[in-house]
Amino acid sequence: MSKIKIIADNLSNIPWEDKPEGYHGPVWRHSQNPVIDRNPAKDISRIFNSAVIPYEGKFIGVFRAETTNGRPHLHLGYSDNALDWTIEEERIEFVNEAGEPFQPNYAYDPRLLKVEDTYYIIWCTDFYGAAIGLAETKDFKTFTRLENPFLPFNRNGVLFPRKINGNYVMLSRPSDSGHTPFGDIFLSESPDLVYWGKHRHVMTGEGAEGWWQNVKIGGGPAPIETSEGWLVFYHGVTGTCNGLVYSMGVAILDIDEPSKVKYRSKNFVLTPEESYETTGFVDNVIFPCATLHDAETGKIAIYYGSADTRVGLAYTTVDEIVEYTKATHEAVPGDNEIGKM
Amino acid sequence: MSKIKIIADNLSNIPWEDKPEGYHGPVWRHSQNPVIDRNPAKDISRIFNSAVIPYEGKFIGVFRAETTNGRPHLHLGYSDNALDWTIEEERIEFVNEAGEPFQPNYAYDPRLLKVEDTYYIIWCTDFYGAAIGLAETKDFKTFTRLENPFLPFNRNGVLFPRKINGNYVMLSRPSDSGHTPFGDIFLSESPDLVYWGKHRHVMTGEGAEGWWQNVKIGGGPAPIETSEGWLVFYHGVTGTCNGLVYSMGVAILDIDEPSKVKYRSKNFVLTPEESYETTGFVDNVIFPCATLHDAETGKIAIYYGSADTRVGLAYTTVDEIVEYTKATHEAVPGDNEIGKM
Repeated sequence: MSKIKIIADNLSNIPWEDKPEGYHGPVWRHSQNPVIDRNPAKDISRIFNSAVIPYEGKFIGVFRAETTNGRPHLHLGYSDNALDWTIEEERIEFVNEAGEPFQPNYAYDPRLLKVEDTYYIIWCTDFYGAAIGLAETKDFKTFTRLENPFLPFNRNGVLFPRKINGNYVMLSRPSDSGHTPFGDIFLSESPDLVYWGKHRHVMTGEGAEGWWQNVKIGGGPAPIETSEGWLVFYHGVTGTCNGLVYSMGVAILDIDEPSKVKYRSKNFVLTPEESYETTGFVDNVIFPCATLHDAETGKIAIYYGSADTRVGLAYTTVDEIVEYTKATHEAVPGDNEIGKM
Repeated sequence: MSKIKIIADNLSNIPWEDKPEGYHGPVWRHSQNPVIDRNPAKDISRIFNSAVIPYEGKFIGVFRAETTNGRPHLHLGYSDNALDWTIEEERIEFVNEAGEPFQPNYAYDPRLLKVEDTYYIIWCTDFYGAAIGLAETKDFKTFTRLENPFLPFNRNGVLFPRKINGNYVMLSRPSDSGHTPFGDIFLSESPDLVYWGKHRHVMTGEGAEGWWQNVKIGGGPAPIETSEGWLVFYHGVTGTCNGLVYSMGVAILDIDEPSKVKYRSKNFVLTPEESYETTGFVDNVIFPCATLHDAETGKIAIYYGSADTRVGLAYTTVDEIVEYTKATHEAVPGDNEIGKM
């Protein structure tokens, strides 16, 4: 039993490895990484930045698949153990609310989660510019696109796994039309997933002490509800003379007012070090998009994109990561505010 | 009586001058421009990009005022004839919905209009980046800020003067954090001015034949309802080796589905030529923000910012401008679509 409570279902069959002896960090890698390597299916050259979820006693995922023409679309995948994945060769076919085909021009960096009895996919879509796409499914057979929540330009839309104060809540990272040399995490609410508002600023990377997140930050997996607040893994980006470097950070948001940051680690909790993270289509990228977590034991398995090429897996426990976040907490100006201006 | 009908109140006391003999354009300048020149009030060095409206038989305006410290805020102004303006020395003090002071860090490029029994100011505000601010007033004494409609980064929010299909409708121009070398006009709907959605793309400048609007475009005055559709003046921007040049364009949007462009002139209808437009704090800017218009006669008076320094005034009639727009119509790819992607 964990000391800090995860408020979610038990999920005893998630992948797990104990922390290696002599390893110091609060998040440790799966020993057999990457769990998905190059060319995982016919005509798919790379899979990364993808999301998985428990489904009917097994696991299902929505994967960012770069086909051999280089344009990303979303593909389903299936697994009994959340480690060995079978990826569908055909992309997900979306329909509009009238049931007619309504395919995005491209789709990348999906998140996947369940709110009440419905599964939602959130991804970066082409809406006359990069923007957040949203679709729902109940059976992983029919995928119905809902209204795009926001105007462009935006990336890293992350829905919370339950309504807060009666509204759906989404994190996102307003951006520009290119590789965006800036970016903070914002939060928005919706009563109906059609109209969105009450936008709030959550957190900035630029204002923090550490340089690993000084260019931009963006949401990662769906927030995990805990007895200490919403546990959020996110990506932080720094710049070098040879490009950007993406690391993983952690924060805890207020449970009822999640635009307020309660705790936030000043340190990254995972940064590209292994060859499958440092070298690939885009070198030096760790980009978390999903977790599996077990309320009973407090185990958390984190799925992350690795160098825009592979899927990596890492582990922590709710006790260890919350304690680490508190112990390395940094009070960044504005973090404790509601974020209204 | 005009042939094309303006669907609005009569406003017989608007400023007016007939088109000068020998002048060819569809929009002509007021002979005594600028109507507001440099240093119009104590500690205000420049007023431009501002909005006026009829009020209690006279006229009232919300003005972008650059004080002697260079930061813009909004000031009220009053006029009996809409030509001679008295500008308040103190900025508008905004409050939040609880009545507490809630001042924007800066405020510029206001639009001002009435929907039903309430006046709305829309401006560019600091919401952890440039974004659309929104406030309401019924008496021009208390100005209550509503929720910011959109996430940053955005400029040129323009509310329609009535609900369409039961919803408030706003044009805006998603942008980036700087001087934004791109930009299309989008449309969003709201049932309550709190939550916004059903975002649609309206029009692009880049896709048009003419170069005067090839860098970006943005909404101008509140759309004018006519028997031919929503008459929209907008700004179009081109780039030169010495900076940007802002001209005024015109389009007519579908009355019930205003994300569809019915007609759109391929030409600018006013471009910086006079010294008060070509020279100032920012050279070569014509930036329309408001019209006064009279349903009875079809007269339209257009207020525009002039070189980020002064307020200019120009005239047309609904018959002349609609006929010109149709005669010079250019079918830009995507214009006739609903703008959903």
